[in-house]
Amino acid sequence: MSDSTTRNTGDYADRTSNQQSNLLTLPTAVATTDRRPHAYERWLIAKLLRTAGSPPLRFQLWDDEFIEPEDTTAEFTIRLNDPKALLALLTNPNLAFGDLYSAGRLQVDGDLPDLMETLYSSIHRAQKNWPKWLEALWRNHNPRSTGLSEAKQNIHHHYDLGNDFYRLWLDDAEMQYTCAYYESPDITLEQAQLAKLEHVCRKLRLKPGMTVAEAGCGWGGLSRYMADNYGVKVRAYNISGEQLVYAREEARRRGLDHLIDYVEDDYRNIDGQYDAFVSVGMLEHVGKERFPAMSELIRRVLKPDGIALLHSIGRNRPMLMNAWIEKRIFPGAYPPSIAELMSICEAGEFSVLDVENLRLHYARTLTHWMERFQNHRDQVTAMYDEHFTRAWEMYLAGSIAAFRVGSLQLFQVVFTHGSNNSLPQTRRDLYKSTAVPKA
Amino acid sequence: MSDSTTRNTGDYADRTSNQQSNLLTLPTAVATTDRRPHAYERWLIAKLLRTAGSPPLRFQLWDDEFIEPEDTTAEFTIRLNDPKALLALLTNPNLAFGDLYSAGRLQVDGDLPDLMETLYSSIHRAQKNWPKWLEALWRNHNPRSTGLSEAKQNIHHHYDLGNDFYRLWLDDAEMQYTCAYYESPDITLEQAQLAKLEHVCRKLRLKPGMTVAEAGCGWGGLSRYMADNYGVKVRAYNISGEQLVYAREEARRRGLDHLIDYVEDDYRNIDGQYDAFVSVGMLEHVGKERFPAMSELIRRVLKPDGIALLHSIGRNRPMLMNAWIEKRIFPGAYPPSIAELMSICEAGEFSVLDVENLRLHYARTLTHWMERFQNHRDQVTAMYDEHFTRAWEMYLAGSIAAFRVGSLQLFQVVFTHGSNNSLPQTRRDLYKSTAVPKA
Repeated sequence: MSDSTTRNTGDYADRTSNQQSNLLTLPTAVATTDRRPHAYERWLIAKLLRTAGSPPLRFQLWDDEFIEPEDTTAEFTIRLNDPKALLALLTNPNLAFGDLYSAGRLQVDGDLPDLMETLYSSIHRAQKNWPKWLEALWRNHNPRSTGLSEAKQNIHHHYDLGNDFYRLWLDDAEMQYTCAYYESPDITLEQAQLAKLEHVCRKLRLKPGMTVAEAGCGWGGLSRYMADNYGVKVRAYNISGEQLVYAREEARRRGLDHLIDYVEDDYRNIDGQYDAFVSVGMLEHVGKERFPAMSELIRRVLKPDGIALLHSIGRNRPMLMNAWIEKRIFPGAYPPSIAELMSICEAGEFSVLDVENLRLHYARTLTHWMERFQNHRDQVTAMYDEHFTRAWEMYLAGSIAAFRVGSLQLFQVVFTHGSNNSLPQTRRDLYKSTAVPKA
Repeated sequence: MSDSTTRNTGDYADRTSNQQSNLLTLPTAVATTDRRPHAYERWLIAKLLRTAGSPPLRFQLWDDEFIEPEDTTAEFTIRLNDPKALLALLTNPNLAFGDLYSAGRLQVDGDLPDLMETLYSSIHRAQKNWPKWLEALWRNHNPRSTGLSEAKQNIHHHYDLGNDFYRLWLDDAEMQYTCAYYESPDITLEQAQLAKLEHVCRKLRLKPGMTVAEAGCGWGGLSRYMADNYGVKVRAYNISGEQLVYAREEARRRGLDHLIDYVEDDYRNIDGQYDAFVSVGMLEHVGKERFPAMSELIRRVLKPDGIALLHSIGRNRPMLMNAWIEKRIFPGAYPPSIAELMSICEAGEFSVLDVENLRLHYARTLTHWMERFQNHRDQVTAMYDEHFTRAWEMYLAGSIAAFRVGSLQLFQVVFTHGSNNSLPQTRRDLYKSTAVPKA
């Protein structure tokens, strides 16, 4: 269990632990070089641009010279500060781009989410023509294990960074670190997060006195919303100690602790039977090989007339997580494809009632987070360091881009036991009134 | 191509073509027997009842004696009129139950859909404990081919039975032979079918001037609704000649023929590019092995910002079609599991936007059809014969039961190309007003 007063910087820098540590020294420590780029280095960059589908971006090398893209005007500039940065980028771009950016050895001129979006969509088109050897060289790798003890480390790495850190840039309504629901495009992050909670509660058809099991409850916002607005009893599981400290405190403060039981334990240990099962933003950390067990768990804890909702980042087809995100940001993460998600339902003989894709809602959520993060940039850097701050900028910007170009999706799936005939037969009730609470 | 004036009774009786023909003589031709049942026949029936999970039903044998169920009071009676009927039921119940019922050699006392529902849910629970040899003996078989020429025969068998026949018991609003949408439970079949058409149009976000490709258009009701209410241009494909005769006539009569092009051709030959692709109740006939080609087709004909909708009977997990339905009613039919349905979307790199399950709407639709069918029972029998009428009663009753107990589902799936960011971001507009048109 984590001590809530310690700071965990994880391996955002990974300074000493492996061979790549030489790539990951901090910006201030980068050895500048007086050596001029070789002709072959210029040639390699031109080749790299073409391989990436000739996006409208140019490279600036360590001697300040530019390599312009062919047949297009550059809208963005990527500056490489040393020759080894180029080598890293060529051999393992998925990992190196984020690492070099974090270390300040790769710098960017232009809006970072826009640049990433341009880059992703260009690469997406281009990679269909990549030779097999290149695909193999640049491939992402299987995520690390999500066994009971590894899951604890994986989650600690990210979610125990400190509540003070997350408080700086998440909504201050319910500290939601998952996709919000922008019922209309102009609402605030706080409104959209509360609308998400309301939307989820409506999909679960909650009624007073019902019991709910929540797997992966974050800072407890959904369980408080359900208890407060729907009068249900929630048993909420989480293995992030930091988050539970906040969740329990906040439930007590708002007089909801008699309705919510926050359990510091793995979702696999949920016991009892419930009218509803809900998991928002945890499935990404479960790991594909554990889906059958997840299915079995829900089958076991859901009453015959119960209803279940999974809210998860997903894919249009099976694909490994970006290497840098899996290594630096979300160890063990694997966003399932829609068919893989459905396989969870099939394994449990569940009946899928409703799937909704909120992809662009997540792009907007992340954009709001990024804005707030930037507004507190100095504070974050003071809490951690510049390397950490840049890593998080890259993570947020890259995620915005991935949702915009459609390489990531956000699925909400509602399902029930196959024999349940007791639920409303249309979704009209979900839209009976606005899901955005009055200010 | 079928001649619209001929009657096709298909192989509902299958009187001469194979070894089972002796099981399928008509009721009037059943050889009655004076022989008393043997003790082992009584024992086999008791065993059969236990194997089926001891549902509350009893058997009456050809000498009028009853075999009562154990530990429960019978709510239904199944009468077997001859010893060979029992043998057929024991060796191949999936096929024989429907065949014997059609031939009048198996008769039922009690509401047929209720009996089938009781039987299905009892068997569903019981079959988890069946020994492997019994599963193997009673298993359903792979559906027949759905290649270009076979598909034409498969569809002719069912859909070219004659428009006069279908007109007797389908809605007289738009001759819809697919699941209706009961926005509220008390609306009529006509209202619910029009509400279904409206619901589909809303999901497709149709606007005047758009172009739509429809695969498998039935009697053309959806295309007329779309043209009439949304001002779109539709190219509608069907290989049932009978249906197209009606569709074209009706479009002319209502002055919509300038907006609708009815094409007598296989969906695989759709060409051009469209703002929307829609297929309501055809995917069940496509065959699982042709899903990748179906996916490729939609990818090809859907514009970059286009939107597609598949409406299909489905399953909670992969399962073969009931042998009798596949043999007598829907040759080649295979309702896909939800993950198999999603595989169509994954193969085309589509982004799944919305899945809705209308299972119990289909049970209600079928109940309405069955009522009307019964009201025109004599007419149907005069058009075909008693065997045909009883086969259709069994098909309708069995389908009602299958949707009620959840062995069949009805999925509407909406999807688009992965890069399409132009669509509404919530489903609120689908529920802006009632989908039921004013009377």
